[in-house]
Amino acid sequence: MINQLIANIKKTNAPIVVGLDPMLSYIPKGIVEKALKEYGETLEAAAQAVWEYNKGIIDATADLIPAVKPQIAMYEQFGIEGLKVFKKTIDYAKEKGLVVIGDIKRGDIGSTSAAYAAAHLGKITIGTKSYTPFGEDFATVNPYLGSDGIQPFLEVCKQEKKGIFVLVKTSNPSSGEFQDRLIENRPLYEVVGEQVAKWGETCMGDSYSYVGAVVGGTYPEMGKILRKLMPKAYILVPGYGAQGGKAEDLIHYFNEDGLGAIVNSSRGIIAAYKNEKYVSFGEEHYADAARQAVLDMVADINQVLER
Amino acid sequence: MINQLIANIKKTNAPIVVGLDPMLSYIPKGIVEKALKEYGETLEAAAQAVWEYNKGIIDATADLIPAVKPQIAMYEQFGIEGLKVFKKTIDYAKEKGLVVIGDIKRGDIGSTSAAYAAAHLGKITIGTKSYTPFGEDFATVNPYLGSDGIQPFLEVCKQEKKGIFVLVKTSNPSSGEFQDRLIENRPLYEVVGEQVAKWGETCMGDSYSYVGAVVGGTYPEMGKILRKLMPKAYILVPGYGAQGGKAEDLIHYFNEDGLGAIVNSSRGIIAAYKNEKYVSFGEEHYADAARQAVLDMVADINQVLER
Repeated sequence: MINQLIANIKKTNAPIVVGLDPMLSYIPKGIVEKALKEYGETLEAAAQAVWEYNKGIIDATADLIPAVKPQIAMYEQFGIEGLKVFKKTIDYAKEKGLVVIGDIKRGDIGSTSAAYAAAHLGKITIGTKSYTPFGEDFATVNPYLGSDGIQPFLEVCKQEKKGIFVLVKTSNPSSGEFQDRLIENRPLYEVVGEQVAKWGETCMGDSYSYVGAVVGGTYPEMGKILRKLMPKAYILVPGYGAQGGKAEDLIHYFNEDGLGAIVNSSRGIIAAYKNEKYVSFGEEHYADAARQAVLDMVADINQVLER
Repeated sequence: MINQLIANIKKTNAPIVVGLDPMLSYIPKGIVEKALKEYGETLEAAAQAVWEYNKGIIDATADLIPAVKPQIAMYEQFGIEGLKVFKKTIDYAKEKGLVVIGDIKRGDIGSTSAAYAAAHLGKITIGTKSYTPFGEDFATVNPYLGSDGIQPFLEVCKQEKKGIFVLVKTSNPSSGEFQDRLIENRPLYEVVGEQVAKWGETCMGDSYSYVGAVVGGTYPEMGKILRKLMPKAYILVPGYGAQGGKAEDLIHYFNEDGLGAIVNSSRGIIAAYKNEKYVSFGEEHYADAARQAVLDMVADINQVLER
């Protein structure tokens, strides 16, 4: 799947991923009201509104982008109905040829980790039949529990040719609280990054590993070091736009081959219509605003990469 | 809810929690076959088997125990159908007066973390109505992202009088890979433990905090130190039994008041009938075997605590 992701990035010339993190407050009133009318004030209505909203964004941007990254928490908050729409969104994005990165940040050990891996990247066998419970192409994974938590994911990745992005240095202000603490004069995130490189050696695609890393775009100096420490790991970069990461900072996350990083934007794309710059599109044309925001983001990043 | 947990522990005189981590391989053949007959070889059949199995265990043990800890991965692996049974299990356990600890190990930041907190411990408001998506009493949380990830859970805990257990030192063999690394001569788990104590200060129950910690029973020397570092944190202790933790090691996880720790057993209870010691119960009496295993576990721990 890492090969597929790279092929999609080359085809679209867009090293970006659209984060499908649908807060109810992002969704245009018209969509919400229609759902409430049809389903009443229920979780089903909220989920339906999320679905309509996502579909609009996918339809408007699928030809421009290599991948989407649904954030499962935003679906899980609506319980079972929300998770149905998480699955529906994955299926729809895949139908449209997009690679799907499940931002699930799961992390456990042994058979529990294996269960998460099967749920999101693998299959479950019941008698003679097998099922794909959620079916993402990649998943984000938390490394705090060590190799016991990662290994079961690697097994499934090898079988299914799927991939993971391990949290190394996250984009949030307090990420340094533990991740930056020095261990023999090196921050913890470097120690984790080194392990990511090791885990990745055992499952390589054509030029990059099935094991990637999450490194926040808000910490470019750290990104520079981590890039060198994990040369074969694709880096998923959150923090561009709304969180303050700038295109010129992102250059360090890429390799000489122009590959190696995929930059996420969520709110900046999906709620673009709320941004002053795109407000003229109007709420009902939120998907067109998202399309324009994608075009602008790609141009912004590519002008830096071309230098 | 920490007050309720302690009240339940005192009432049952059982500082234990039964981990409802239903692997399909644990479930008696009779239950699985009945479900396959009714629902075919489907995820629904697997989920139905899990439900029958859980119900049997809850019915057989509810009067002896203060709490259950369903491991969400074991339900998530069966997709939407599995998650329906996760919710059904929570509701049923609560009906029986049990405290429910959702072993979800979620961890993210800001609005995403808030969405997880709402999903599992809080409410979601749709128009004028509010819903409880999953409704656990406690949730386990991963600290790797720092305070940004914990704070939104604390907000919900304060509003709803719920609680969290933060992963500090996990029970698995490779937990030391990152957690034991020395930071200014102190292992990372102590640094995290210190933060748990700080986070917990802001939301106290009568004698213990809403913020507890997970510390593996397989590392008693570390448990001893962490007990002192977080005097007001309830410690959830995995690793007893199947993973090798022994009752005499657990004494260090308790405070002088005889409280402060709750010891988990999953496989050792729910699949007791597969253990040589209880094999005479027979597969169809798996729930009676689980009851006997609970009685034995409580006696084993209490004889050490009474010393």
